[in-house]
Amino acid sequence: MHSKEAIAERFKVLQDYICKHLELADGTGKFHEDLWTRAAGGGGRTRTIAGQQIEKGGVAFSAVHGPLPAAILKSMQLEPADFFATGVSIVLHPHSPMAPIIHMNVRYFETSDGRWWFGGGIDLTPHYVVEEDARYFHEALKSVCDDFHPDFYQKFKDQADDYFFIRHRQETRGVGGIFYDYLDEKSGLSHTQLFDFALALGQLFPHLYAEMLQRSQSRTWGESEKQWQMLRRGRYVEFNLVWDRGTKFGLETDGRTESILMSMPPGANWVYNFQPAPDSAESKTLTRLQKGIDWLNA
Amino acid sequence: MHSKEAIAERFKVLQDYICKHLELADGTGKFHEDLWTRAAGGGGRTRTIAGQQIEKGGVAFSAVHGPLPAAILKSMQLEPADFFATGVSIVLHPHSPMAPIIHMNVRYFETSDGRWWFGGGIDLTPHYVVEEDARYFHEALKSVCDDFHPDFYQKFKDQADDYFFIRHRQETRGVGGIFYDYLDEKSGLSHTQLFDFALALGQLFPHLYAEMLQRSQSRTWGESEKQWQMLRRGRYVEFNLVWDRGTKFGLETDGRTESILMSMPPGANWVYNFQPAPDSAESKTLTRLQKGIDWLNA
Repeated sequence: MHSKEAIAERFKVLQDYICKHLELADGTGKFHEDLWTRAAGGGGRTRTIAGQQIEKGGVAFSAVHGPLPAAILKSMQLEPADFFATGVSIVLHPHSPMAPIIHMNVRYFETSDGRWWFGGGIDLTPHYVVEEDARYFHEALKSVCDDFHPDFYQKFKDQADDYFFIRHRQETRGVGGIFYDYLDEKSGLSHTQLFDFALALGQLFPHLYAEMLQRSQSRTWGESEKQWQMLRRGRYVEFNLVWDRGTKFGLETDGRTESILMSMPPGANWVYNFQPAPDSAESKTLTRLQKGIDWLNA
Repeated sequence: MHSKEAIAERFKVLQDYICKHLELADGTGKFHEDLWTRAAGGGGRTRTIAGQQIEKGGVAFSAVHGPLPAAILKSMQLEPADFFATGVSIVLHPHSPMAPIIHMNVRYFETSDGRWWFGGGIDLTPHYVVEEDARYFHEALKSVCDDFHPDFYQKFKDQADDYFFIRHRQETRGVGGIFYDYLDEKSGLSHTQLFDFALALGQLFPHLYAEMLQRSQSRTWGESEKQWQMLRRGRYVEFNLVWDRGTKFGLETDGRTESILMSMPPGANWVYNFQPAPDSAESKTLTRLQKGIDWLNA
């Protein structure tokens, strides 16, 4: 079993790896780093990019520790203890409406009374759903999951459908992906194997997004696609601020606001009661923002 | 004591009055009406405007009824009963960064077991704080409050400072205003007087905003002021989606999403860790977004 310090160090290396490969995929953008410390213990390095393909992106590492916040004690029914939490979080918003927004998070949590667990997920939010891209994305996630446990993909895919759901819109955020939390030895995997699973997802991530950017490059777009992208970014804001547990928890427990809201798009629009034209590409996308779609065979 | 039906009818007349005077203030914009019904009982008429001064605005009336939602029973520790709720809600986003965003809500709530109360508020969110405008705004609110109760203005002004506070930014949403809730006979005023107070605020509202628009017209602005407005609109989104109790409650209890999110700006931007230049107008505004400022003497 790796020590918590070793896990944090390895996550920093993962952050470096992801940033390097995302710069290569973008072509011109370079990450800028912002180091911060947390008064109650720990800190992080938040890296942001504005490039030729990625309009606004962030790849954040943090490792924080201290007494468990009262809100966690209550929601998880834990006894007072110290905690240690480390992870890498990413959200990338592309310039092109024909490329998807992507999100990834891998995290590790441990308490001074001996509990530990892993959590994480990757999900894709196309402004326009392209079924071949969704299939490619899910196949890649399934391949990594299958290397670790035959049940992981389907279970975590279903959890992503439930988690990345904008309830007040009755829409999924995008085409889903995988989401898992509180993963410990009851999963059948050891601490080391679960850590390896997180690293395998993290190492896949930049290549997966490079492929998505590559596929989008031949797709032309104009003002009307840009307007749709701005509305879909509004939905992304709505999900993150209203429903995302990590965002809500961070903001309500005085986390570092700028790192938490690194996920916000560069811009977003709202139009009262917007309805796309029947049979338009926008309408078709809305019909695909539903739970339970088998993207491997879509 | 007015019946709940009479209150709803009078609120409709108030909505008409406000819309008429806002159209006059804007000059060219006209409201479009959207009628809706609620499956569990009641409905509303949501009116939206896009004009030459008001870029995106909404003035919504609703009157809904049915069994009290489980979430209200729990949060207010009430016994199961039927409720009736009616009110008028407004948010207006101007084109000009030199004019403020404004919000108003007046509402009435009653239950089948005999409880009733009024709630409401008006608050102003300038993109650039202009102290004379904030003073004018607060003086006008104080004047209406003083007609009803000598303690109302100060009490409700303090409550607005606390309510319209973006905790994760440690900023107020703007220069505040008044906010009140659960106002019943314990206030010292009768049901009829409290209703009259709500109507007096509602009737002041369009004239107050007309004055704000008028004052902004001679103020020039360019791209840099527009960019700041987009960032401040981002804060408005953050407040409404993360902290506003009405918005959160509505979205979590399956209210009518398009009417609830009528408050969203037409567009909003986010920039990672944006810091305005020292001594700029933007920096100066940030220093005024604090609780407890006596705007009457600022």
